[in-house]
Amino acid sequence: MENFEYCNKTKIIFGRGTEEKVGSETVNYAKRILLHHSGGSTVSSGLIGRIKESLKKTGVEWEELTGVQPNPRLSLVRKGIEIVRNSKLDFILAVGGGSAIDSAKAVAVGAVNDGDVWEFYERKRTTDKALPVGTVLTIPASGSESSISSVITNDDGPWKRSIKFQCIRPVFSILNPELTYSLPPYQIACGVVDMLTHIMERYFTKTENVELTDELCEGAMRAIIRNARKIFNSKENNYDAMAEIMWAGTLAHNGLFETGRIGDWASHALDHELTAIFGIAHGAGLAIIFPAWIKYNIKENTKRFARFAVKVWGVDGAFYDIEQAAMEGVIRMENFFRSIGMPVRFKDANLDPERIGEMAKRVVFFGTIGNYQKLDEKAAEAVYRLAVG
Amino acid sequence: MENFEYCNKTKIIFGRGTEEKVGSETVNYAKRILLHHSGGSTVSSGLIGRIKESLKKTGVEWEELTGVQPNPRLSLVRKGIEIVRNSKLDFILAVGGGSAIDSAKAVAVGAVNDGDVWEFYERKRTTDKALPVGTVLTIPASGSESSISSVITNDDGPWKRSIKFQCIRPVFSILNPELTYSLPPYQIACGVVDMLTHIMERYFTKTENVELTDELCEGAMRAIIRNARKIFNSKENNYDAMAEIMWAGTLAHNGLFETGRIGDWASHALDHELTAIFGIAHGAGLAIIFPAWIKYNIKENTKRFARFAVKVWGVDGAFYDIEQAAMEGVIRMENFFRSIGMPVRFKDANLDPERIGEMAKRVVFFGTIGNYQKLDEKAAEAVYRLAVG
Repeated sequence: MENFEYCNKTKIIFGRGTEEKVGSETVNYAKRILLHHSGGSTVSSGLIGRIKESLKKTGVEWEELTGVQPNPRLSLVRKGIEIVRNSKLDFILAVGGGSAIDSAKAVAVGAVNDGDVWEFYERKRTTDKALPVGTVLTIPASGSESSISSVITNDDGPWKRSIKFQCIRPVFSILNPELTYSLPPYQIACGVVDMLTHIMERYFTKTENVELTDELCEGAMRAIIRNARKIFNSKENNYDAMAEIMWAGTLAHNGLFETGRIGDWASHALDHELTAIFGIAHGAGLAIIFPAWIKYNIKENTKRFARFAVKVWGVDGAFYDIEQAAMEGVIRMENFFRSIGMPVRFKDANLDPERIGEMAKRVVFFGTIGNYQKLDEKAAEAVYRLAVG
Repeated sequence: MENFEYCNKTKIIFGRGTEEKVGSETVNYAKRILLHHSGGSTVSSGLIGRIKESLKKTGVEWEELTGVQPNPRLSLVRKGIEIVRNSKLDFILAVGGGSAIDSAKAVAVGAVNDGDVWEFYERKRTTDKALPVGTVLTIPASGSESSISSVITNDDGPWKRSIKFQCIRPVFSILNPELTYSLPPYQIACGVVDMLTHIMERYFTKTENVELTDELCEGAMRAIIRNARKIFNSKENNYDAMAEIMWAGTLAHNGLFETGRIGDWASHALDHELTAIFGIAHGAGLAIIFPAWIKYNIKENTKRFARFAVKVWGVDGAFYDIEQAAMEGVIRMENFFRSIGMPVRFKDANLDPERIGEMAKRVVFFGTIGNYQKLDEKAAEAVYRLAVG
């Protein structure tokens, strides 16, 4: 086990009706805030109306910035920073999924640090200063509601880049599974893949003697898979299954599952190029990339992939041919992804393999990616090719 | 799943050599502190010397209060409160196991609240005010290093009572598995039982649809059992196994495993009387009480005990006679406790069954205990009797 430090200060407020607490939580931090969301279903569902009521009750005033879209854009972040500075706001409240939250985090950093906020995403600067961010989550997926990450797309690139700063971890996040009922199945499926891969990025490690976190990762993955099946096999809203998924999505990315171990994260980098170039959803891209990443690595410390197959996918033992057992795990994972409507090959999402060379070049912009094995441009290209079909 | 709020702000600093960071962490909170510990092995091992060096380096001054003993006493807490008030100290640093930490938490509450600190333990008052507490942990067991609990014994009773206040959660805890190497096997075994039962108190619930936390609890219990076996089967210090145990002990009691579910806690109450009256170690008492508590409850929602048997103790399925499967789990648990040198019956620890009536009367002082089933005096007596032998 590696030495580690772990501290997660996000206050989680979970369950039915909890969005009514948004005012009383926010007022602990600020009286004047930026309310940041898509302006679409957040409004039509009545959620934003209820949030405004709650804010009003505690005397919190807001300015509103809507227009957040999937793979949130730098241009909107810049607009948010300007509003916050001009109106002297002290807090960002994100309502929505990972896109709204990541966008809010970027505004929170940009508002209190001089210079261009994009430089943080380009890894030219770092900071421990940001405005406090609170969230009301409506999409279980990104884990951004208690993570230190934010991913933003620069409209000019398109470049999709991330930051990881302790100071952007939300101070509170409100999670009501009922708020997810209006999500289309495709978006739920993308979320399920996203949270599973957040765990897998940490689970696939070469750090030895991490049994406790192995157990926690495996248990969470099984719970996600089982409850995702319940949701997709159920004609009515299933509060309990969605509650499991929603809490799992938070834990998947709050840092606990990586304590004492070194994660990989190559697949996320590979997917960022895919989503930046083709504009497909993050989760869908990961469903295509991750099986290919495993296949590329399967001969490297095969027993870890065999363990994954046995403990997560119920493959029956791995006593003789562990590589075959490991491969059976990948097949079951692909079948599961397909069963919830996710693509697992380029062709399933109509992606053009012609652009693989370009993506491979871009993905190693900062150097090799991943830790399980370090992937250079050639290796990245090989992983993409394994995903073609 | 029940609605819940969860926030754990303790900063965990884990691994080899981490006690050297105690000065730089403490100085973030105070320049004048109370250093609180047993004065025994903490000193002879050289640990306190190293801690003082680290404090000195960052200009932190201390007064010292030694003499903490297992089942820490109110009399010493009162002494600590006096020192802190008289010397105007701003922080309590506990070095040791749960006893030192619980004692430090009591001092932290008493120092900033007027009146008698024991009244909080008698449930006559509550508070959200305490001095900050930091810890350097040397015994993996209580989980007090990131919990909201403190258990103190009133010398006059003997009464053993607990408080649970968010304000006493340590601000940081330093965990170096190497610091546990000097522990006698009996104390390690007590710690293993303590942390397992912290999970079991939460695991045995009637709340339905808590699959994710079920998985996390089961995984952590398996990791604890497996690594305890490694420690007890190994002639040399086993850093990796102890690291798993130590981190598991913290997670067992940091609140995560009870999110969305209602725990039981009758066994801890029953054990508090046992340890108050007979002076045996907390963990040893729990090894006697918990099997009896399961036997008393086994016909109530039997499937939960069967699941425990199958998933934690590897009992082979529970397809036909689930009560038999459940009972097989208890037997395996008892065998495990015995294998690490723990008593599982009154007679194993030379406890006098004559005092059961008295303990049963005392344990329901505040009313019935437990949530799985509410236990009154008669039921408490029945559980004690099942533990006699």
